Amino acid sequence: MTKERAYFESLALKEEGKLCPQHVPEVYHFDRTMSLIGMRYLEPPHIILRKGLIAGVEYPLLAEHMSDFMAKTLFFTSLLFRSTTEHKRDVAEFCGNVELCRLTEQVVFSDPYKVSEYNRWNSPYLDQDAEAVREDNLLKLEVAELKSKFCEKAQALIHGDLHTGSVMVTRESTQVIDPEFAFYGPIGFDIGAFLGNLILAYYSQDGHADQANDRKGYKEWILKTIEDTWNLFHHKFTALWDEHKNGPGEAYLPAIYNNPEVQLLVQKKYITDVFHDSLGFGVAKMIRRIIGVTHVEDLESIADAGKRATCERRALNLAKTLLKERRKFESISEIVSAIQQF
Amino acid sequence: MTKERAYFESLALKEEGKLCPQHVPEVYHFDRTMSLIGMRYLEPPHIILRKGLIAGVEYPLLAEHMSDFMAKTLFFTSLLFRSTTEHKRDVAEFCGNVELCRLTEQVVFSDPYKVSEYNRWNSPYLDQDAEAVREDNLLKLEVAELKSKFCEKAQALIHGDLHTGSVMVTRESTQVIDPEFAFYGPIGFDIGAFLGNLILAYYSQDGHADQANDRKGYKEWILKTIEDTWNLFHHKFTALWDEHKNGPGEAYLPAIYNNPEVQLLVQKKYITDVFHDSLGFGVAKMIRRIIGVTHVEDLESIADAGKRATCERRALNLAKTLLKERRKFESISEIVSAIQQF
Repeated sequence: MTKERAYFESLALKEEGKLCPQHVPEVYHFDRTMSLIGMRYLEPPHIILRKGLIAGVEYPLLAEHMSDFMAKTLFFTSLLFRSTTEHKRDVAEFCGNVELCRLTEQVVFSDPYKVSEYNRWNSPYLDQDAEAVREDNLLKLEVAELKSKFCEKAQALIHGDLHTGSVMVTRESTQVIDPEFAFYGPIGFDIGAFLGNLILAYYSQDGHADQANDRKGYKEWILKTIEDTWNLFHHKFTALWDEHKNGPGEAYLPAIYNNPEVQLLVQKKYITDVFHDSLGFGVAKMIRRIIGVTHVEDLESIADAGKRATCERRALNLAKTLLKERRKFESISEIVSAIQQF
Repeated sequence: MTKERAYFESLALKEEGKLCPQHVPEVYHFDRTMSLIGMRYLEPPHIILRKGLIAGVEYPLLAEHMSDFMAKTLFFTSLLFRSTTEHKRDVAEFCGNVELCRLTEQVVFSDPYKVSEYNRWNSPYLDQDAEAVREDNLLKLEVAELKSKFCEKAQALIHGDLHTGSVMVTRESTQVIDPEFAFYGPIGFDIGAFLGNLILAYYSQDGHADQANDRKGYKEWILKTIEDTWNLFHHKFTALWDEHKNGPGEAYLPAIYNNPEVQLLVQKKYITDVFHDSLGFGVAKMIRRIIGVTHVEDLESIADAGKRATCERRALNLAKTLLKERRKFESISEIVSAIQQF
């Protein structure tokens, strides 16, 4: 990866930090020549969220905090709040982060759907599952649409890699780190990354259950966190829209859209599109974590390969179904039901 | 408008000229300080296409040439042919043309749907029609989606103002000029601009008919040109895709998409989306030419205001219907039938 990644990481940290200082570590200094970022030390007991999810730790404020981070960073960098002039200026700047965009294209939208030296999976258990993905034309059709959106749709400044390894937590604090993949892309890519990784954490729990802890209660907590995160995001994003509907965003001018009926119509359309994008990107990121180059510790740390394969296959089958049928789903509670059915 | 427009006009002329030299006048010299473009003189009998359409002149090669221009300029600047690196570099460059993007946003997607000092229409005949547009929530919902695509979807280098006043013609030659609105936007915006202006030309013919020429044959020729332009574009764009399916474009990697069944699926999806975008943008551009700031000479030159209103209302009603129901249409022949029914 290029040295430039540190520049875009610091740029995104500063921008996100301005918009949501509670959940982004402060940057004190950046030196472009040295690619050096001086930033807040996230002191113990902060740990990577993924580690906490593997250990079975509940974070009662996680949905509240992550919905806050996503609603604020995504709303305030979209055309719902920005002028076209600001938007095009910032889109152009982040076009420079192309190397990391290309990496995402490859590992999320390409490699899992073809034979690639980088792919790996829980063999021999998932050999047929991996092959089935490579031969599923409808899956490839859907993934092509998502890739086009990723490459072409400059909707907001997205973190670009918002999985559970990019979040540090305590029971009281949630801090989003590592935005070196940031660029102007589709809002659903961030939401999907976070929800998709929570779903992987959910399916991995049976692999971590033992006689002392059957993880049943914890699985319920993960499902509730998935549901709460989306619902709170929806609520907060819409509230920001209502609050700022008289400007300065140029997408929906008040002289056209400030009657209650049309305001409801455009918000419902916008949020529904973000919901379906989130589902699509979220499950695409699940698929790549099971049959692509980089896996997640949630599943990898299950020692028994057969037990791990059962968890992985459930996740993979949910993901394949949602990728093809996501537009039929209207609410996050339907998604939670589907997760439980696989 | 800013002095920078000449820079982007020359940049787009040079790029389009490389991709389709037969239909773009050559640029000999550009001086940025002076905003001076030295380019080919389009000698008589070249005239502005719109003038020819008003005079009732048939251009037998128009559909062939315009489909050629659109297929080549749009295909070769999209991710079907370009790498992500080239795409993001050029997207960033054309983000600088923001002032003219803002102008389009205002005159096409905003002003016609609100009270604006700039709007004008054939009053009093169309007073109620203009008011009905401003109060049509479903129309506003559709126009919001199109505006988002215009602002966010960097699909290809589009001309940005491809109406019949931006084309110079003889019976043998077709030359596309004035790309000062060029930027990376949705492919359907160019196709729609051209087709929408042909539809306006069609509806204006009854206003130009007289005892010497009832214009019936000419109306048939316009409809045939609309149909041929889309069908030839579809054919040529797909042929370019097939020809270059093994690279260098990074959107559909051969290792994933080079089986005939999935190739057909993704092409059908891509072209259908472009078709519906073209219809949406095309009729949005019709609406703005009837109740927005800038009108078209095709209609304005009809001296009898009552007769003109009849032509304008037919165009407006078709446009409103297609804007809301465009996704129900699957072929250009269905559109031609709809045009005749209004």
